[in-house]
Amino acid sequence: MKRIFFNTIVGAIMGLALGLGWSSPTLAQGDPLPSWNATATKQAIVEFVGRVTKPGSPDFVAPAERIATFDNDGTLWVEQPMYVQMAFALDRVKAMAPLHPEWAHTEPYQAVLEGDIKALARFDEHDLVQLIMVTHAGMTTGEFSKIVTDWLATARHPRFKRPYTELVYQPMLELLSYLRANGFKTFIVSGGGVEFMRPWTEKVYGVPPEQVIGSSIKTKFQMRDGSPTLFRLPEVNFIDDKAGKPIGINEAIGRRPIAAFGNSDGDLEMLQWTTISAGVRFAAIVHHTDAEREYAYDRQSRIGRLDVALGAAAENGWTVIDMKKDWKVIFPFETR
Amino acid sequence: MKRIFFNTIVGAIMGLALGLGWSSPTLAQGDPLPSWNATATKQAIVEFVGRVTKPGSPDFVAPAERIATFDNDGTLWVEQPMYVQMAFALDRVKAMAPLHPEWAHTEPYQAVLEGDIKALARFDEHDLVQLIMVTHAGMTTGEFSKIVTDWLATARHPRFKRPYTELVYQPMLELLSYLRANGFKTFIVSGGGVEFMRPWTEKVYGVPPEQVIGSSIKTKFQMRDGSPTLFRLPEVNFIDDKAGKPIGINEAIGRRPIAAFGNSDGDLEMLQWTTISAGVRFAAIVHHTDAEREYAYDRQSRIGRLDVALGAAAENGWTVIDMKKDWKVIFPFETR
Repeated sequence: MKRIFFNTIVGAIMGLALGLGWSSPTLAQGDPLPSWNATATKQAIVEFVGRVTKPGSPDFVAPAERIATFDNDGTLWVEQPMYVQMAFALDRVKAMAPLHPEWAHTEPYQAVLEGDIKALARFDEHDLVQLIMVTHAGMTTGEFSKIVTDWLATARHPRFKRPYTELVYQPMLELLSYLRANGFKTFIVSGGGVEFMRPWTEKVYGVPPEQVIGSSIKTKFQMRDGSPTLFRLPEVNFIDDKAGKPIGINEAIGRRPIAAFGNSDGDLEMLQWTTISAGVRFAAIVHHTDAEREYAYDRQSRIGRLDVALGAAAENGWTVIDMKKDWKVIFPFETR
Repeated sequence: MKRIFFNTIVGAIMGLALGLGWSSPTLAQGDPLPSWNATATKQAIVEFVGRVTKPGSPDFVAPAERIATFDNDGTLWVEQPMYVQMAFALDRVKAMAPLHPEWAHTEPYQAVLEGDIKALARFDEHDLVQLIMVTHAGMTTGEFSKIVTDWLATARHPRFKRPYTELVYQPMLELLSYLRANGFKTFIVSGGGVEFMRPWTEKVYGVPPEQVIGSSIKTKFQMRDGSPTLFRLPEVNFIDDKAGKPIGINEAIGRRPIAAFGNSDGDLEMLQWTTISAGVRFAAIVHHTDAEREYAYDRQSRIGRLDVALGAAAENGWTVIDMKKDWKVIFPFETR
């Protein structure tokens, strides 16, 4: 918390400095994006930040309007071979199974408990919603937050054998910090569950809970033995994906972002909403091109499909980040 | 915008100063709450802020957790003789009438157009929802924002003959600034429409759009002639009142406030959610006791009824702000 507070001060003072006419968009000391190769991608990012922060420039944007939104799965952290939140749900089914002996012979639970990969791959939306609801509802918001935190402390990615919170993209962490140092307010706008992200986004990304927008289930306010609680109900409240992203941004922020970052067709409408408007705008798509260091997937992928949005990028002048070419390192642990 | 940015810097530097061990919870120069009489109410506020901001104190709260939530109608601005947003809806019916000749003989529109006060007073919830929907939906979010801004520029309060944005409570403006100067993040949590408030809360209260939580209608994302728009639909999305307030706070902020301010039974659950929890907490209720300078109402009032919450205040040790006794002035124009 101390470190984040310090960063806030540094950011504020940087902002003040810029307001007083020091025009460098970068941090005073060294390259603020050291994990990015010196490609056109990096240049496009730095140029955009320079234009909107240069006082007196016709493209200058007041700090309050410097809103940048980031998708999470596949944009800030790994989403293969399955969404982290799905791995969480499957582990929760296993953890909860002793209380539900009937699951041993009831689908979709049986397939999960038996680790039947083929059956899992055939799950339809109804199965997935059922798995999410049974594992994400039926407790208070405080209890759910603790379940998520405890799971993240022990769960490991099947390929990298590391905690999921270490499988975040180092170049994107630098980008988040760089934007904040230049007076931007950074938001996460994810199809994932908002209460699945909030317990850890401040520590991992420097993004506080009030700047995390996501999908949600309904909650019910109850006084329990004199204590107020919010109880999580097995009912969808909001799906923050595709056309839901600009809707969620408008509901939660009430301003239009000037920069947005995504990696799949689920981000198309957020990028349109951000860029097709007056003023200087910036959008980028993380293209997973590195099967060796991470994964390579796009048009045919079941998870994180990037097809229509890739065409839209060409049409709208969005930057396509080529992981293999643009990133020196992928994960923070590679730099240590 | 410049002024707000400057205030942010001052707030950050104040926070830094406090972090370094200067323990005064007030601004360096003079009384930060000059419109408050030196009563127990003012003392309770200053003591609370002192406790949570004093470094090393067992009650110290990190700046990131210093969340304070404020109801709007009747807590920050006038809500009599009717909610400002209802005055807006009635004026909009009149402005839209030429396009709807059938309204001249269709209720509830006819009563509005004829200024039939008795009929207006008999409107049930169905009538009111109908009036809200027809005046608040059917346009883009950008168009609605302009309609609100234009209306506020010309509309006048029937008794005070002033713009509604001048009928905000000076002591509460000082309280908002005082909390922010002490590292708090201030949020509005209102039963009113979120998009009715956001066009003006930053200018009037110093509360940016992303810190305004309110009731909302559904929106639909559409590409129109190549431009992305959010179109407002005549369908309720969320009612941010009563038990909806803690739900709205959790959805939008994801942290529990440590201070909350309200004025009616609609704020009861927000105040419970804020205060009935571990750590030092503060809640206050604005009690409208000044018929001469503003209005006097509580248990029997149709608008802003304060009945159950007044009992809960006594039970839970919430501060009751007595407008007549605690406030030197009510409105900013009295100080000029």
